[in-house]
Amino acid sequence: MTDVTLVLNAGSSSIKFALFPAVEGVQEPVLRGKLSGIGSHPRFTAQTRDGTTPNWDAQLPLHPRASHEDLIPALFDWLERHDDGLTITAAGHRVVHGGREHHGPARVCPTLLDDLAELIPLAPNHQPHSLVAIQCLVDAVPRLPQVVCFDTSFHRTQDSMAQTFALPRALSESGIVRYGFHGLSYQYIADRLPETPLGTRSEGRVIVAHLGNGASLCAMRQRRSVATSMGFTALEGLMMGQRCGSLDPGVLLHLLDGKGMSTTELRHLLYEESGLLGVSGISNDMAELEAHPAPEAREAIEMFCYRAACEMTSLATALGGLDSIVFTAGIGENSALVRHLIIQRLAWLGATLDTDANQRNATSITGKDSALEILVIPTDEEGIIASETRRLLSVQPTSSHRTIQQSRP
Amino acid sequence: MTDVTLVLNAGSSSIKFALFPAVEGVQEPVLRGKLSGIGSHPRFTAQTRDGTTPNWDAQLPLHPRASHEDLIPALFDWLERHDDGLTITAAGHRVVHGGREHHGPARVCPTLLDDLAELIPLAPNHQPHSLVAIQCLVDAVPRLPQVVCFDTSFHRTQDSMAQTFALPRALSESGIVRYGFHGLSYQYIADRLPETPLGTRSEGRVIVAHLGNGASLCAMRQRRSVATSMGFTALEGLMMGQRCGSLDPGVLLHLLDGKGMSTTELRHLLYEESGLLGVSGISNDMAELEAHPAPEAREAIEMFCYRAACEMTSLATALGGLDSIVFTAGIGENSALVRHLIIQRLAWLGATLDTDANQRNATSITGKDSALEILVIPTDEEGIIASETRRLLSVQPTSSHRTIQQSRP
Repeated sequence: MTDVTLVLNAGSSSIKFALFPAVEGVQEPVLRGKLSGIGSHPRFTAQTRDGTTPNWDAQLPLHPRASHEDLIPALFDWLERHDDGLTITAAGHRVVHGGREHHGPARVCPTLLDDLAELIPLAPNHQPHSLVAIQCLVDAVPRLPQVVCFDTSFHRTQDSMAQTFALPRALSESGIVRYGFHGLSYQYIADRLPETPLGTRSEGRVIVAHLGNGASLCAMRQRRSVATSMGFTALEGLMMGQRCGSLDPGVLLHLLDGKGMSTTELRHLLYEESGLLGVSGISNDMAELEAHPAPEAREAIEMFCYRAACEMTSLATALGGLDSIVFTAGIGENSALVRHLIIQRLAWLGATLDTDANQRNATSITGKDSALEILVIPTDEEGIIASETRRLLSVQPTSSHRTIQQSRP
Repeated sequence: MTDVTLVLNAGSSSIKFALFPAVEGVQEPVLRGKLSGIGSHPRFTAQTRDGTTPNWDAQLPLHPRASHEDLIPALFDWLERHDDGLTITAAGHRVVHGGREHHGPARVCPTLLDDLAELIPLAPNHQPHSLVAIQCLVDAVPRLPQVVCFDTSFHRTQDSMAQTFALPRALSESGIVRYGFHGLSYQYIADRLPETPLGTRSEGRVIVAHLGNGASLCAMRQRRSVATSMGFTALEGLMMGQRCGSLDPGVLLHLLDGKGMSTTELRHLLYEESGLLGVSGISNDMAELEAHPAPEAREAIEMFCYRAACEMTSLATALGGLDSIVFTAGIGENSALVRHLIIQRLAWLGATLDTDANQRNATSITGKDSALEILVIPTDEEGIIASETRRLLSVQPTSSHRTIQQSRP
């Protein structure tokens, strides 16, 4: 028998899942997969460690209107039956928002769920789905210890100056502050850094660039967050696949008052129609833009890199200098062009790339004469959730946990 | 007889005015003054070059409801009568918004006024007052040649990347772009730089920090704007006296949808209640905050400097490096503390201050071993308007100008 930890990362229309061996430290998952198209045409994909792709049992409720509530208990059953040798002994969840109080992972209990429900207004597009996923498992498998890991926790080490907007004090005190996101990815990278060619230099001034369809930067000193580019929501900071990133607040006032846009239209504009997609008019996908011959595609890529490089140096001042840059996530791990264009703009800081290593997405892509070390490290948000879940449960063993059975409001 | 140029800088409740000798180059004004409290309790103050403070004639219309239309012709008459030896031979106006077409000052004619009226939606708080001031003079003194100087023109040398938001292309093409402001101040500094200790090094990579109640940065190469911190409106970028500066767009959506704020309330919050005033809860005035013992006052100052230093390095990347920093405007010229705190955060770039020179607001405040040159240069927006007005009129002489008499809609 192998004990495994189930990791769930639930969004509005998809649920990523993975099973990790229930042992100390970050591991390779036994199985990883995704339920996508929830609410329209659900699809199931998964891959085991040995490369086989198991099929979802035809009896399971993949009907078009299957909800999170239908799918999560079914998924749990299927996962337990998929391999006779596996027992799910814990579950870990990604939760986007932990507010100001949660500086690390937390054990699921009724009080916690109440707290997290209160944060829904701060992350209305993400928070509810995570809470539904947790509740589904509470209802279906009340004996199972569950842990939540927050995208915001990693940034709670920041100075208040980095976490505060220049708004009236009362608003900041009411929670309109810079929470930061992608914290699970940053935590994963921070944990891995000492094993990379950086070694003990991991403790220096490092900027991690999490560049995916969502994109942000984190400035770290001693592997702790000092500043980050995303703020109160995941809209601030870098230009992203479809999101505008930082934008003159006067533009919003003008579109509302001058152009008569509704907040619903504005939200859609800024979250869905902007960024790489809006500037190129072609795609939100970096690989597609790189392959596209239109000058608008190249313009969008250049602007993405220009803004990322400018923001990196802004964060370097928050750090009081810069020793290393780490690229991660979809674009950061795979786009040699993006890394090249960003580092080119940092030539004035003495940064250079090893062109061949960069083309190969090698771990160290530092140029021979570079003043900064430059790395590519694949991130694993599910991996860090599994290891954080295990770590917390080993401190608060399963036997002592309170079973939760009441349903949530 | 001395020919002079009248400079008007008209706001919603105040009009700054000055008379400059009508000769080439930047001069000291013969007289400088202000009509303030327009619409409530108008007040007149003025000072001549020799230090005397003339009094506004009691017969003139300083009644509580006196409008721009009442006051401007009366001011013109008073100025002409104030000194028998002076003749006003031209007027120059500050106009905040010149849109994308105006790369320099422009001669007033009906077509121009129509163009500028079309830009009112882009600067609803500023543009109408300037246009009223111009029209008042057109009506009162139709023979007078008039020139407008724009706060946006100086930035039209920027790369499209620096001028564009990551919004859908159609929106950018419709004019939702980064215009930048404080251009008259930057033009003045750019013109003065070669006469300062910077000499020919003025052509290098220079960041000018215009730090007043409104605050922005301009990155210059060869004394031309390469990037600036203010965008579509004067709300973006640095933290200011009462304005928030850059702010996660998600905060606006949250305050509108989640908190039920109206756009009028939101506009007031972001333009009037934020910045130094909001964070300190004490004052928007830097000198007052520096003298205040409360920790909130110090916090506001620290945040102001933190954000300015971060934004400076972001702009340094737009420039591909940094050779010099110039401080100007109310805070930039007078706050040794602010300059000290900003430069301290740029120590990682090798910047140091000459502490004594900094305390004295000396022109060069560069530290002995500093890698960057650091200067303090007082700005003069009225001065640059006068010299730009003269320059344009010497190319397009008065004799050829078309008299404008029709009144504006």
